[in-house]
Amino acid sequence: MQVKVNTKRLWERLMMMAEVGATPKGGVCRLALTEEDRKGRDLFVRWCENAGCSVTVDALGNIFARREGLEPDLPAVLLGSHLDSQPTGGKYDGALGVLVGLEIIETLNDLDISTRAAVEVVSWSNEEGARFAPAMLASGAWAGVFTKDFAQSRKDKDGITFLEALESIGYKGSRNLGEGKYAASLELHIEQGPVLEVAGLSVGVVKGVQGIRWYTARIKGKEAHAGPTPMKYRKDPVQALLPFLGEVYEIGKQYAPDSKVTVGEIHTLPGVRNTVPGLVEVSIDLRHPEEATLLEMHQQLMVLTEQANLQGQVHFDLIQEWYSPPVHFDQGCIDALKTGAENQDLEFMDLVSGAGHDSVYLSGVMPTAMLFIPCRDGLSHNELESIEMEHAANGANVLLQATLQLADTSKKIYTR
Amino acid sequence: MQVKVNTKRLWERLMMMAEVGATPKGGVCRLALTEEDRKGRDLFVRWCENAGCSVTVDALGNIFARREGLEPDLPAVLLGSHLDSQPTGGKYDGALGVLVGLEIIETLNDLDISTRAAVEVVSWSNEEGARFAPAMLASGAWAGVFTKDFAQSRKDKDGITFLEALESIGYKGSRNLGEGKYAASLELHIEQGPVLEVAGLSVGVVKGVQGIRWYTARIKGKEAHAGPTPMKYRKDPVQALLPFLGEVYEIGKQYAPDSKVTVGEIHTLPGVRNTVPGLVEVSIDLRHPEEATLLEMHQQLMVLTEQANLQGQVHFDLIQEWYSPPVHFDQGCIDALKTGAENQDLEFMDLVSGAGHDSVYLSGVMPTAMLFIPCRDGLSHNELESIEMEHAANGANVLLQATLQLADTSKKIYTR
Repeated sequence: MQVKVNTKRLWERLMMMAEVGATPKGGVCRLALTEEDRKGRDLFVRWCENAGCSVTVDALGNIFARREGLEPDLPAVLLGSHLDSQPTGGKYDGALGVLVGLEIIETLNDLDISTRAAVEVVSWSNEEGARFAPAMLASGAWAGVFTKDFAQSRKDKDGITFLEALESIGYKGSRNLGEGKYAASLELHIEQGPVLEVAGLSVGVVKGVQGIRWYTARIKGKEAHAGPTPMKYRKDPVQALLPFLGEVYEIGKQYAPDSKVTVGEIHTLPGVRNTVPGLVEVSIDLRHPEEATLLEMHQQLMVLTEQANLQGQVHFDLIQEWYSPPVHFDQGCIDALKTGAENQDLEFMDLVSGAGHDSVYLSGVMPTAMLFIPCRDGLSHNELESIEMEHAANGANVLLQATLQLADTSKKIYTR
Repeated sequence: MQVKVNTKRLWERLMMMAEVGATPKGGVCRLALTEEDRKGRDLFVRWCENAGCSVTVDALGNIFARREGLEPDLPAVLLGSHLDSQPTGGKYDGALGVLVGLEIIETLNDLDISTRAAVEVVSWSNEEGARFAPAMLASGAWAGVFTKDFAQSRKDKDGITFLEALESIGYKGSRNLGEGKYAASLELHIEQGPVLEVAGLSVGVVKGVQGIRWYTARIKGKEAHAGPTPMKYRKDPVQALLPFLGEVYEIGKQYAPDSKVTVGEIHTLPGVRNTVPGLVEVSIDLRHPEEATLLEMHQQLMVLTEQANLQGQVHFDLIQEWYSPPVHFDQGCIDALKTGAENQDLEFMDLVSGAGHDSVYLSGVMPTAMLFIPCRDGLSHNELESIEMEHAANGANVLLQATLQLADTSKKIYTR
């Protein structure tokens, strides 16, 4: 028996969901807990109910659609992602993972396949963090990283709380936060980077998420008029910045190819064309999949800052803003995805996610892994975000295979 | 006969003028054509009238106070500067030059010295440009660089025109713009840089004003997520900026010590910590006293930009924003100031002004030169701007000597 998802149905639903909050440039604006989000949720819930699922909603608006297994007491396999978007987001970030989860249930229905364990599809609230900070708020609270009160009391820029917004769209459910027994969680997502596209592959198995360290470097010199102040009397933080940042990028090169160094913000103060700045502030973002390596990069940055201060003309301060340790996904889930790809004769590669996802928090409380498919030019959080239908189908079929393995421990009934 | 200004009177008047618009930190806020400016003008006019001067005001509010000479038809010697200030300006920028002009007239009165040519003191409107752009507006219009209509129609940030503001403080006069016959113009000003202070000198004879070339460099890369985008796939304008700016500063070093290179503004877009910028914009300010040298610096910057574009990963655009050619002051006026300093047994040095002054425009229509005295730490456009009384007295006496030379062509009557 050939077990394949219905690509046409999956794609049609992706396009229907993309009409909810559609923007003129072909993207979507479906901010968390807005009227557009409600419409997207309603559409998803209707599809789930039509597919015979029992739908429950928890205290943070996370939606769970369950297809019962032969042995209801077994822990379920959880599939899903999120339906909210960035203000100028794309069609696929999040929605793909949710609708592929649903498509897998539809496919099991179509082929009349029963699994021993139940399969559930989840749509997590407010993954993007674009309306309510921080990102991945509801999956984080579900996993116990945030309290329910913390999540419900988050405010948007107009002062509306998460709870108020949730109630206003009618999606505060009665299910308890964290309720349910799960054997594994799988999330299909677009890569949001260029690696799979460059490699010419349909799928990448995500082994984990990079660690991230954020810093602000402040370089204090002496403000001076550009006209009357000779070069030799200047304490110019911009001139001091150049070799310093050059060395910061060199730290990245030492740990290539998995290290990442990004300077996204540079501010000069007062920021006037004809004034030597008195102060320069730059953001530094260091990433690496391995905790020990990221720590080495951190230590080198500290040393670099101390050395820069020995030059004397200006003063360097390095402020540590944030640390997010690397996440390593579950080997059993990773193996299930790899086996799924092999079953489909799909060449795949290992990836480490550079961005955060709901799976990061889920991995703290259950076996978890992710599967990536390519997006055009690595473009995401952008209305021009685009994927190929073929990759979506391949990704869905790999996830289907992995789901069958994880939900049916006999591993014998369903082959390609 | 010893000819010296009355330092006590000069200093007292500087302090009285500084009370008009005084700020808590010891500076002044006397923006052009405000009520504070009116009070400062009223005070100045009263002093001038008490000193026996005939006071006239022109269509842009420039105030001329004339002490008649023995031969009224001879072209007069013009002394002065401006009374308006920056929003958080200091006590001496501008006011010193105006009040030293008046003090020279008072000294001539005290010592009963008649000059063959008349001596006039002028206070130019809106030199700072802090309220009405551009700077040096009224002296520029007086010298024919701007039309009267252009100057009168300039608007402040609240939409009030120069003319409306001028009329509201009662300083729109009937004298025609550009009226008067002048043999020479001398302006005493604080240096606004550190050179005289470091050299331990009271006075510097300003031979001219540096040429200035302004540019904006735009470096276009490709915006990308800091997380999922491997370093090798990035088109990062910040990484490209570092060697480019390093080379820009090297251009300055080639033409040291008179060259100046300033990068006052750096903007990354979108300017987000976890996004590789798609665009970086930086301002570049190149200065040199010699036109030919500044042109060489300009050409090297053009070549540098072309070479940077050959690297390929990102695209450099160099936009020329402004060019202000170097100004060379009048040798006769310079010599008069030098002779004046020698008469006072004052060691002096030649300087080139880095900043613009009313004298820049005046030098286009009459023999002109400037004299600088040191300000503490080179600090200006700052409430903490500070000078030594001794330097003010020395500067005033040098200017007095030069005035006597230029106003009395016999050069015989008055010696130290």
